[in-house]
Amino acid sequence: MHKNHGPVYYGDYLMLDKFLSSQEPLSKKFADSHNGECHDEMLFIIVHQAYELWFKQIIHELNAIVDIFQKNFIEEAELSSIYNKLERVKKIQSLLLTQLEILETMTPMDFLEFRNLLIPASGFQSVQFREIEIKMGLNTNDRLDVDREFFLGRLNQSDREKLTKIENGPSLLKLIQKWLERTPYTEKSDFNFWNEYKNSINQMISEDEATIKSNSAHLSEKEIAIQLELSKLTRSTFDCLFDENKHNELIASKQRKLSQKAILNALFIMLYRDEPLLNLPQKIITSLIDIDENFTTWRYRHALMAHRMLGTKIGTGGSSGHLYLKRAADNNRVFVDLFNLSTFLIPKSRLPKLPDSIKKELNFHV
Amino acid sequence: MHKNHGPVYYGDYLMLDKFLSSQEPLSKKFADSHNGECHDEMLFIIVHQAYELWFKQIIHELNAIVDIFQKNFIEEAELSSIYNKLERVKKIQSLLLTQLEILETMTPMDFLEFRNLLIPASGFQSVQFREIEIKMGLNTNDRLDVDREFFLGRLNQSDREKLTKIENGPSLLKLIQKWLERTPYTEKSDFNFWNEYKNSINQMISEDEATIKSNSAHLSEKEIAIQLELSKLTRSTFDCLFDENKHNELIASKQRKLSQKAILNALFIMLYRDEPLLNLPQKIITSLIDIDENFTTWRYRHALMAHRMLGTKIGTGGSSGHLYLKRAADNNRVFVDLFNLSTFLIPKSRLPKLPDSIKKELNFHV
Amino acid sequence: MHKNHGPVYYGDYLMLDKFLSSQEPLSKKFADSHNGECHDEMLFIIVHQAYELWFKQIIHELNAIVDIFQKNFIEEAELSSIYNKLERVKKIQSLLLTQLEILETMTPMDFLEFRNLLIPASGFQSVQFREIEIKMGLNTNDRLDVDREFFLGRLNQSDREKLTKIENGPSLLKLIQKWLERTPYTEKSDFNFWNEYKNSINQMISEDEATIKSNSAHLSEKEIAIQLELSKLTRSTFDCLFDENKHNELIASKQRKLSQKAILNALFIMLYRDEPLLNLPQKIITSLIDIDENFTTWRYRHALMAHRMLGTKIGTGGSSGHLYLKRAADNNRVFVDLFNLSTFLIPKSRLPKLPDSIKKELNFHV
Amino acid sequence: MHKNHGPVYYGDYLMLDKFLSSQEPLSKKFADSHNGECHDEMLFIIVHQAYELWFKQIIHELNAIVDIFQKNFIEEAELSSIYNKLERVKKIQSLLLTQLEILETMTPMDFLEFRNLLIPASGFQSVQFREIEIKMGLNTNDRLDVDREFFLGRLNQSDREKLTKIENGPSLLKLIQKWLERTPYTEKSDFNFWNEYKNSINQMISEDEATIKSNSAHLSEKEIAIQLELSKLTRSTFDCLFDENKHNELIASKQRKLSQKAILNALFIMLYRDEPLLNLPQKIITSLIDIDENFTTWRYRHALMAHRMLGTKIGTGGSSGHLYLKRAADNNRVFVDLFNLSTFLIPKSRLPKLPDSIKKELNFHV
Repeated sequence: MHKNHGPVYYGDYLMLDKFLSSQEPLSKKFADSHNGECHDEMLFIIVHQAYELWFKQIIHELNAIVDIFQKNFIEEAELSSIYNKLERVKKIQSLLLTQLEILETMTPMDFLEFRNLLIPASGFQSVQFREIEIKMGLNTNDRLDVDREFFLGRLNQSDREKLTKIENGPSLLKLIQKWLERTPYTEKSDFNFWNEYKNSINQMISEDEATIKSNSAHLSEKEIAIQLELSKLTRSTFDCLFDENKHNELIASKQRKLSQKAILNALFIMLYRDEPLLNLPQKIITSLIDIDENFTTWRYRHALMAHRMLGTKIGTGGSSGHLYLKRAADNNRVFVDLFNLSTFLIPKSRLPKLPDSIKKELNFHV
Repeated sequence: MHKNHGPVYYGDYLMLDKFLSSQEPLSKKFADSHNGECHDEMLFIIVHQAYELWFKQIIHELNAIVDIFQKNFIEEAELSSIYNKLERVKKIQSLLLTQLEILETMTPMDFLEFRNLLIPASGFQSVQFREIEIKMGLNTNDRLDVDREFFLGRLNQSDREKLTKIENGPSLLKLIQKWLERTPYTEKSDFNFWNEYKNSINQMISEDEATIKSNSAHLSEKEIAIQLELSKLTRSTFDCLFDENKHNELIASKQRKLSQKAILNALFIMLYRDEPLLNLPQKIITSLIDIDENFTTWRYRHALMAHRMLGTKIGTGGSSGHLYLKRAADNNRVFVDLFNLSTFLIPKSRLPKLPDSIKKELNFHV
Repeated sequence: MHKNHGPVYYGDYLMLDKFLSSQEPLSKKFADSHNGECHDEMLFIIVHQAYELWFKQIIHELNAIVDIFQKNFIEEAELSSIYNKLERVKKIQSLLLTQLEILETMTPMDFLEFRNLLIPASGFQSVQFREIEIKMGLNTNDRLDVDREFFLGRLNQSDREKLTKIENGPSLLKLIQKWLERTPYTEKSDFNFWNEYKNSINQMISEDEATIKSNSAHLSEKEIAIQLELSKLTRSTFDCLFDENKHNELIASKQRKLSQKAILNALFIMLYRDEPLLNLPQKIITSLIDIDENFTTWRYRHALMAHRMLGTKIGTGGSSGHLYLKRAADNNRVFVDLFNLSTFLIPKSRLPKLPDSIKKELNFHV
Repeated sequence: MHKNHGPVYYGDYLMLDKFLSSQEPLSKKFADSHNGECHDEMLFIIVHQAYELWFKQIIHELNAIVDIFQKNFIEEAELSSIYNKLERVKKIQSLLLTQLEILETMTPMDFLEFRNLLIPASGFQSVQFREIEIKMGLNTNDRLDVDREFFLGRLNQSDREKLTKIENGPSLLKLIQKWLERTPYTEKSDFNFWNEYKNSINQMISEDEATIKSNSAHLSEKEIAIQLELSKLTRSTFDCLFDENKHNELIASKQRKLSQKAILNALFIMLYRDEPLLNLPQKIITSLIDIDENFTTWRYRHALMAHRMLGTKIGTGGSSGHLYLKRAADNNRVFVDLFNLSTFLIPKSRLPKLPDSIKKELNFHV
């Protein structure tokens, strides 16, 4: 027992009096004018509350991560702490998917019994979910038009102000960009890493083309032509990566989100992830990809659920339903640039050898 | 929008003001005298609240099931409703397991940072979990001694009274027993089902023994002796099932929970589950087995988690920790008798043929 | 031990000699010319084999289901068997999703080590997966153009022939349609169900419109106009359902797959699912929706995995990768018409009362 | 396409001809003398094959881990590789649990249809699972008597020899012990870590006792006495850890598996996990705990499944069934000593401060 307070009681600690009295089905409240209480409305409330509860935990983790990333120098132990928090978010996300399965034990017909009571409330009004999206790096302006309208229009004044304020704060995307841009190893005076990398790529592609041309035993002429065409495409994709102007055009047209410098450094981390100092950065990048993938999957599954629950009906909040949700699944991805890094990976055997001075910096004292 | 009230707002409907202000870490409240707020206490609170939230939903389902089972006659549509509710409980249980994995993202060392603040609170004080156990059919008197002491001693007066009251109400176990005892098909004047069943068993065992004896090509003498011994054992297990006195002795010594009549009728349902009218009853029995299995697995996993979190330390509530929890996992099973039904199943080809009059009753009009 | 054969040995029964010698990494076979064996190629092989193993089981279940559905009359016990098999397929599908997570423990860089060895092999060449799609009801002609080309072009002669043969056989979609069309309850001489249903809908929509118009306290004029517009839309959606010509046009333009009669009968089943005889049919329809949803989710998750593994590179089989896969996720859905049924559900309180003669037919003898 | 071989075909690469022809139900082979083929035997075979397939992958990972651990010096990149492989094993284990759920879609009655055909085959004859247990560190002599008998008696000569050979090779437990014993940081001439640690503990316990004694406002005399007794117990548990003779006695009586030195160093790693060089070692220890926990859960769930499938019948292999399996779940744990580490953790604020010389060694050059 702690010296500052008396004995703690489980129910008091968890504030269960308050917490467990926050479920009030409207079909119960209006049981008389309605057709009596609907058994499944309790499930509907509890599933949504469980989402909000876990959203609160995700925000708690994101806030702690953002706090660390705002420092100018991040110690190794802090990177480790960031990684553990991201992994926790992933575990929570897998729960969010399972919760959809529980909601689906309510049939569309059961939902219909109390659906009219909820109009025009809508999951689009979940301020915490919007907060997560914004903290991750999804700007209101990045949204589809229809999404932006929902985003602004369906919330009350106070919620709208809350979100605007958050939007003016730092996002994970922007902080990650700064952190990546700071990674210094690719710009040493005695080592022009990217030149060597480009040579590796050119050599690799040339060898591939030679193999294709010499393979008339297994390939038809047409197939050889196609494969050579693909090879040319690969070459131009690599070229783009190193042209800063071209990259900034892609940012302007919203095809890229991260600066060229950040992407190149992230690529360096992925390529040399075996160096001890790059181990945690590589793990963090991978976790961000996982988290983006999980939210995307969740949005897509949510769209399918809306489809089965409502058919082609309009949602309680007036949204066009599952079609809208499906488009949003893909449009609201934040870390696509990290997914695309794989485009530029090359086999380990082709990697430029790091100079000893850099290798030493990337390693332990021992 | 409903005619009885104004437009509904998501956050109001879910009472989020109240709900999301029910998380107050003690390490934050006592941050000065403590070593500052512990990041992971929020997770600790939210995981436990998520459990309580889902416990509330499970109780909501159990109450609805109990209400139906208290009727003297249960319509087919109501059996279907019971089955769907049991299946929902199963889905929720699978979530409870995943939540343990989330709690385990907190390391034992992180827990240590705020553990002392919680003494002597304990998960044993979860009134809702105790309510679930009692509603399922776990009587205080069925518990291990040490468990009973916790059960009574650690709760405050008002919680203790609440649980005593629930204990005096109907339990699923008792209601299921009554429902099974009512199933009438095995006692028709023109058909002594159990005699035929016993004949089938005897014939089957005799054939098995003949096969064993004639199999000296593949089996040693010792192996033949062992197999014949096992066969004898099987015979005596079957004999026991039909001796009511013997069965009541097993109930008295707490080796059985259901009456002989209930068990025999449950066996009939399992054997003839293909008959339309027995389809849902068989599904319900299987769901009860699943639910019992899931709670048991959860208790066992919970014990392993306590072990890794505390080692051989005493729990915050003063319990002997993981060893106690492990024993409880097995001792607190409610529907063991339904698990044991499999002992008495026989292959379909050996089943006594039902007379037409009974088959007709078990079928649709069409 | 069985009388027809000697003692069975675990390894022989499972043919493990053969089974466990079917994993031969190419990077091991060509270790000299390659850069040595790649540790992760074993994982790559085993994950894909695990998929094929479970595909075999799914086909085993689909074949059994198709066999039953080909009968002219399906007994209740057989419907129950179909339902259990569909539920098993669902369980297997949840495993298929988890297997993607295991494959993702291989990083894109690890994959790169042996990726070139596999060209031009591709998952598109999984004959069993194509067989599942065809058996479910996905016709080659329903596919996207690019998909059809893959479908035909990448397989060898013998596999192509195998699939063409399967395509000429019965599909679940077609058999379900016939089964639904046979459901007779909606066409009794003394009860015109659909007229009553239409009356209910019209009354319901009219009441809604009245509520909207009278709600100037909570709604702006513009909002009232929008809500009335939506109401009109609802009305026209319902009207379409009953116009057979219109429906056949939708089939011709591939917006519907099931006949109007089948859809109407499925709707009847969903609306009166509480009647005992409709219980299993309703469960089967719901399982089909679940299975379609699961395959769709799996395809989408697969597309995201391809994106993170390859970036914007071309797949080993030459496909345009994740963009193609994402489009396919939605285009290859089979039971969309069953998802859309929810559009036409009405609250239980609005349901036309069934005449006693029909209620009796839908119930048990007892 | 690779220069050393022609185009690769999916089915050839995965050896599907061989792989997918390894499923031969005995009920099909003996369909005439039996009552025809049993639909569910295919599931039974495929589930077991899926287990064997994943066991092969787990062994593949364990072998690679053992290879690295056998080196005298393990580089940071190799530790990272070990960690990734352990995490992969964990993912596979979560699949193994789901596969039990799939097997449970076969009812006990369905199993009964072909069960006799399998006698006396048994899962105890899975050589690969035994190999995993031995490689993890479970020695035949550590097993329960009854288990040892099964272990030796039920396997054929060649399988027995295979396992004996593996048992003579290195196990993860022994290699981990050596690796932990090598960790040098706790024995520097200028820093006696363990003395400082003991002081911290003594001070902490004394403070706790003072708090208890002064707390007569909240605690009864009896409760104060109990809490002081518990405090004494804590003190003696800590004392034991530092007495090598006492520890060796615990090893002799099989209550400990790891040497005192290995346990102390593991404790140091857990206490100072935030130091960069200890980050991966701490993660590896945690993964080993997870893996042990997962196998234990799997064994327990397997026991529950056996119970529901067979009741109190004897298993096909002649084992006493679920009771035996349940005891084995707990007895076959390998890394219990790592679970118990939590007993000896102390709050971060109580940790002895590491001298700069050691802190520097545990950090990066930068």
